[in-house]
Amino acid sequence: MGDVTAGLIVTVMLIPQSLAYASLAGLPPEVGLYASILPLVVYALLGTSMTLAVGPVAVVSFMTATALAPLATAGSAEYIALAGHLALLSGLILLIFGILRLGFIAYFLSHPVINGFIAGAAILIALGQIKHILGVSADGVTVIELSTNLVSQLSGFNATSLVIGITAIVLLQLSRSWLPRALTWAGLASNIAELLSKVAPMFVVIIATALVWALDLEHSAGLRVVGHVPAQLPSLGASLPSSEQWSSLFLPALLIGLVGFVESISVAQSLALKRRQRIKPDRELLALGASNVASAISGGYPVTGGFARSVVNFSAGANTPLAGIISATLMLGVVAGLTGLFRTLPYAVLAATIIVAVIGMIDIKAFYHTWRYDRADGLAMIATAVGVMLLGVEEGIVLGVVLSLSVFIWRSSRPHMAVVGRVPGTQHFRNIKRHNVETLPGVVALRIDESLFFGNAHAVEDQAIALLAENDKVKDLILILSAVNRIDTTALEMLSNLNRSLNENGIRLHFAEIKGPVMDRLRHDAFLNDLSGRLFLSLNEAFDYFAAPTNPNSTQESPQL
Amino acid sequence: MGDVTAGLIVTVMLIPQSLAYASLAGLPPEVGLYASILPLVVYALLGTSMTLAVGPVAVVSFMTATALAPLATAGSAEYIALAGHLALLSGLILLIFGILRLGFIAYFLSHPVINGFIAGAAILIALGQIKHILGVSADGVTVIELSTNLVSQLSGFNATSLVIGITAIVLLQLSRSWLPRALTWAGLASNIAELLSKVAPMFVVIIATALVWALDLEHSAGLRVVGHVPAQLPSLGASLPSSEQWSSLFLPALLIGLVGFVESISVAQSLALKRRQRIKPDRELLALGASNVASAISGGYPVTGGFARSVVNFSAGANTPLAGIISATLMLGVVAGLTGLFRTLPYAVLAATIIVAVIGMIDIKAFYHTWRYDRADGLAMIATAVGVMLLGVEEGIVLGVVLSLSVFIWRSSRPHMAVVGRVPGTQHFRNIKRHNVETLPGVVALRIDESLFFGNAHAVEDQAIALLAENDKVKDLILILSAVNRIDTTALEMLSNLNRSLNENGIRLHFAEIKGPVMDRLRHDAFLNDLSGRLFLSLNEAFDYFAAPTNPNSTQESPQL
Repeated sequence: MGDVTAGLIVTVMLIPQSLAYASLAGLPPEVGLYASILPLVVYALLGTSMTLAVGPVAVVSFMTATALAPLATAGSAEYIALAGHLALLSGLILLIFGILRLGFIAYFLSHPVINGFIAGAAILIALGQIKHILGVSADGVTVIELSTNLVSQLSGFNATSLVIGITAIVLLQLSRSWLPRALTWAGLASNIAELLSKVAPMFVVIIATALVWALDLEHSAGLRVVGHVPAQLPSLGASLPSSEQWSSLFLPALLIGLVGFVESISVAQSLALKRRQRIKPDRELLALGASNVASAISGGYPVTGGFARSVVNFSAGANTPLAGIISATLMLGVVAGLTGLFRTLPYAVLAATIIVAVIGMIDIKAFYHTWRYDRADGLAMIATAVGVMLLGVEEGIVLGVVLSLSVFIWRSSRPHMAVVGRVPGTQHFRNIKRHNVETLPGVVALRIDESLFFGNAHAVEDQAIALLAENDKVKDLILILSAVNRIDTTALEMLSNLNRSLNENGIRLHFAEIKGPVMDRLRHDAFLNDLSGRLFLSLNEAFDYFAAPTNPNSTQESPQL
Repeated sequence: MGDVTAGLIVTVMLIPQSLAYASLAGLPPEVGLYASILPLVVYALLGTSMTLAVGPVAVVSFMTATALAPLATAGSAEYIALAGHLALLSGLILLIFGILRLGFIAYFLSHPVINGFIAGAAILIALGQIKHILGVSADGVTVIELSTNLVSQLSGFNATSLVIGITAIVLLQLSRSWLPRALTWAGLASNIAELLSKVAPMFVVIIATALVWALDLEHSAGLRVVGHVPAQLPSLGASLPSSEQWSSLFLPALLIGLVGFVESISVAQSLALKRRQRIKPDRELLALGASNVASAISGGYPVTGGFARSVVNFSAGANTPLAGIISATLMLGVVAGLTGLFRTLPYAVLAATIIVAVIGMIDIKAFYHTWRYDRADGLAMIATAVGVMLLGVEEGIVLGVVLSLSVFIWRSSRPHMAVVGRVPGTQHFRNIKRHNVETLPGVVALRIDESLFFGNAHAVEDQAIALLAENDKVKDLILILSAVNRIDTTALEMLSNLNRSLNENGIRLHFAEIKGPVMDRLRHDAFLNDLSGRLFLSLNEAFDYFAAPTNPNSTQESPQL
């Protein structure tokens, strides 16, 4: 029962969205409808989420448009074929990733990069839709191109289009923000109120279409409308892209696949967690990959799991993949018999749908929180957003990924290190600069708070040597490796050199709290045999050893160093 | 006194080396001599090492040749000018890095990548010199090109050249391996024996040159010789490269600068450590940068600190920068008056010098040790070596760096995690799979052995959820962050989601052993206020808390979970 309700409501959302997102992708409306049939069935059969609603989504549609813009004229037969190739290629990439269990690659798109990307893309998308509201032509792939073209076309605006478009934006925005509260206040249960407000866009579309038909605004006011949508089922079959097309579509297909996968899996996972269900990322790769291949062979374009429809699917009670199959069947019915109804649907209303949807995706709070919590992440986020707006979608996202990986590597190369002492009366050790702790004369205990690798081995060596240079009475250096999870070859050579040169200067090198996996690795090397000092299971054991009366360094309770 | 001896011996090594390495770089002999004067003086004034011997070296000379090969004909006036530009650009890059204190960038060339690069370059260099031994012409930048060209020219070999070349190789190899032992056996102190054997190449050069002159082999046997070397001092001054040249020289100049810096600093640091002296990497960048600029304006080509000469400088007793100034003065004398002596020096002997030197740089043991210790490092090493040989020098080194960074990121994205319990009678906690430890019913303590970032946040979330799915009696999950040095925005959002979804399922999330810097960062966010559980300074404190009779989970000593 829940599945039937969910299937129905999602279809009511899906109809205007598939038309709008096809327009956003530069494709005729029927391509959006086709992308909402077979992919849903394939996902229902293969996916692990019970609630994910697959189909056309705003960001992927926009990425399709920017990928194809340099290759063909929007809406042309060649363009439609290329959109299919993009879905095919993106689906094959996801399938290969799924087979190779490379789902983790998607996690290299960090949240700040995704948020920055979505904010930048949303602004670009909204800006790109203003032409439909104004009833003019203005294309471009960056904010600067779009703004310049819009400004130059501004004088030719269509007043009817503008009125209808702005009215639709206001109504749609009210149905998002005000309608659920009003319905709740009127006595409806809040979840029913939420669901009803999600269906509101369909009413806006119906009213606008009826109005344009009744007043014949298409001819009397020159309003641009969807026009004839062929009432025929998608023909199955796919042509393969040429090798030249493969290479120009590869990067866009990869990014569309990954962005779509990340968007999908975040929605699916957050919904599944609420019901203690599990999502299997590698299975999801296969399911989304197959859905895109299905879209390609049934006249569609790239698809993925959308946020808004999935949430509605969940709230409306979808429990099994049946909801998706019901949606697909209903969409099939729409394509077979109802496409005539969209003839007088104005593009201004579809643009309003897109603008309201994408502006709602910009997460201002995330920018504020990220900036406060972590400047580097905040910068990566802003750089991605600005990169997407000024350089283009693919360039912006690649910039964000490179930046966030660089920040990670740069931070790992500057390890935090602390000289520690024992908290009196306990077996715990803390930074001597932050806590009042006991130390032993002639012994320095240095905790290294990072795995050792080629990027930071020198920093550790420098710090150890600097510490010993400060205090020439030191005879024993203990490196505490409790936070060291790996030691690579370069770092091992550094430790080996350090051991040798300290030994030449009469200082012994000891290790404490070496982790199991690190120890296993070290046993493969001669390093431990050549060590001038000892290995201690715990730093406390080391302190007891050096404090023992038999040891040359006698016990002393007062803080030193 | 030590400085004078060292300066003398280094000069005796430097004369044949500067001629040979100039030939390797595709430059006339005088360019090698010029590169051995002013750069030495500049380094002596600015450098922090007392023993580093700056000047032409094999690897940098070879990189110069491969960078310039596609741009001009070796030995032409344009080629010589480009070699100067390369030194200038490489020097400026090092100066900028020094001013911005970016010395750490060089450490991103890991030891396996450097070893792989040197091995690959050594094989390429040796192969490229065989043409001089055979007395034929055969160029190429990859092993395949070189081998093919050599084989096609094989029939035109010069027997005299071959005999002289092979004799030189045998003599030089014996002077490396057998001479020091023979001299020690004959009663010389081992350090004197070592030094004398380093001067041997000069005798080989002198004997060969005298022989060719006496028998007039240049004309009677068609032997290729160095020929006329102008006896004039380098004219100071530099032309600036065109913008087109800048862009084609930038990547080679960057790599030559970095490789030269890494080679220099490793030698300088290992020698300095033996005398408890300190090398300052950022000062070294400035000194090497200025030396290259000096080389550029005095008719030279890219220089750096060489391994062999620096070790000799050290052993011969160089204590101050004076040794370098003495070498430079002696080289100035050679250029001014003795260049006529090199006229009949055969290229086959210079090629022999190069072959013996570079084959000695291949560290087979390092390959074996690295492979045994760490497969991924071993693979990066082999890939770099093979990349250098098959793709080219720059391509190989970029491949190695990208590979080693990818390995680092990939490993960080698969964190080690362990469920831990208390070692009976202590305050220590160990992996329950490796040790016999106590646990508490209803409590899972998970130690995360890696900083949390976007690449591994999902893995941690998955692991936590999987652990809880295994045991539905768990009411408290403690995450132990003793090895977590940073939590980025993505990971913080993951923890926040985990906290919320666990809470919805009646499980509390606690943290233990949060490090100071991580705690400082977390205080900037609302996350800690929303935490369903508690923060514990130590895991022991957490165990005591949950074991207390007032706690719903009573004490239990037997191992659980």
